[in-house]
Amino acid sequence: MAETKIAILLFDKFAALDVVGPYEVLSRMPDSKVYMTAVKPGYYKDPKGLQIGADYSLQDIAHPDILLIPGGFGIDAVLNDSEILAWIREAHTTSQWTVSVCSGALLLAASGILKGCRATTHWNRKTQLAQYGVIIENARYVKEGKIITAAGVSAGIDMALYLLSLAVNENCAKAIQLGIEYDPQPPFDCGSPEKAPKALVDKMRK
Amino acid sequence: MAETKIAILLFDKFAALDVVGPYEVLSRMPDSKVYMTAVKPGYYKDPKGLQIGADYSLQDIAHPDILLIPGGFGIDAVLNDSEILAWIREAHTTSQWTVSVCSGALLLAASGILKGCRATTHWNRKTQLAQYGVIIENARYVKEGKIITAAGVSAGIDMALYLLSLAVNENCAKAIQLGIEYDPQPPFDCGSPEKAPKALVDKMRK
Repeated sequence: MAETKIAILLFDKFAALDVVGPYEVLSRMPDSKVYMTAVKPGYYKDPKGLQIGADYSLQDIAHPDILLIPGGFGIDAVLNDSEILAWIREAHTTSQWTVSVCSGALLLAASGILKGCRATTHWNRKTQLAQYGVIIENARYVKEGKIITAAGVSAGIDMALYLLSLAVNENCAKAIQLGIEYDPQPPFDCGSPEKAPKALVDKMRK
Repeated sequence: MAETKIAILLFDKFAALDVVGPYEVLSRMPDSKVYMTAVKPGYYKDPKGLQIGADYSLQDIAHPDILLIPGGFGIDAVLNDSEILAWIREAHTTSQWTVSVCSGALLLAASGILKGCRATTHWNRKTQLAQYGVIIENARYVKEGKIITAAGVSAGIDMALYLLSLAVNENCAKAIQLGIEYDPQPPFDCGSPEKAPKALVDKMRK
C-alpha cells in the first residue's frame, strides 16, 4: 500500500494548536507521513514565538493525499499570496481530502475552492468567510464532498478524528482517540459564542 | 505587575500535543511569557519528526513561576537524567505551580516531588507511576497543593484552563476557552479505557 502523504501548511503567526491538534491525530495514521510544508523550508513562529519547523517547500509536496490548512492571526497576510493560492488549487485537483482548521478556511476560500460550498471557521471569522460566497454553517466541522472545514483552533482535533474515520475506518480513529486519551472535560462550558456570557463574546468580537 | 514566567521542558520524542495543548492556553495568559526550555537550546523532534524549538537552557530558566513537564514516548530516556531531575527539584522550590501532562508525571515522580502525592498520568502509564510511591487517581487532572498532573496527551488542554482559573481567575480562563473555541465534540466516545471497547484497550496495553 502506498504511503498516505499528508501536507500541513506553515506560515508566520500560524495558531500552534490549529497545527498540532490535527497533527497529533493524523501523524498516527498507519502508512502515512506528515510533510510540514511552507513557501520556504525553515522555522515559523506562532504569535508568541513558538517555533515549528517546515521541512518541505510547496514544490516538494505538489500532490499530497491530504492537504491541511491551519489558521491563526497570520492568515490575513497570506490571503493574497499567489504562490500559496496556486499551490492549494493544484493540490486540490488530486487530493483525496482538502481540510482546514479555524481561519484556515479563509485561505481555501481565497483560492476559490470554497465558492458556493457549505463550510465553517472560527466563530469570529464567519462574517469574513461569508464574503467569499461561502455558505456558513454553525457546526464543529462541515464536510462538503472531499472538503472538510473545522471551527476554531481546538476543533481541528475533532475534525481530524472524523477525517480518519472516513480515510481509514472508525476502528482506526477510535484507537487513536484512546491513544491521545481524548475524553475532554473542559472545566467551563463556554467554548462557543452560544454558550459563553454575552458580555465576553461582545468584548472578544472587538 | 511582574511577568509570569512559564517554562515548558522539551526533550527528544516529546508528544507534540502534550506541549502545544497547554502552550496554546498558557501563552494567552496576560502578562506572561512562555520559555521553551531544554538541556541544550535547539530543535527537538516528536516521534514522527515534528520539530519544535527550545530557545532556553535549564540554567537560563532556573526559577519559572509555572513549570510544565510534558510527556511522550521519549520520557523514559530522561527519567534518569540527573541534570533535568535537579532542575525540576530546584525549580519546584520556588514555583507557584508545578504541572505535568501525560507521562510527564513520571519525570516529576523521578525527581522525588510526587512521593506520597495524589496524581494522574496517561492511562497506560499508571502502573509505572505507582512504582514511585504515588497515589494514582482516575481523573482528568489532579491538584495536590501547587502540583497539578493531567491525564494523557489531550488532557493538558483541560488542565491548563483549570490552572489559569486558579493562577488568574475564572473569567480569564473562560475568555481563553472561547478564544480557542474549546467546545469539544469528539466523533466517538472512546477516549478513556473505561469507555473504549475492551478488545481495543487490551490491544493497546501491549
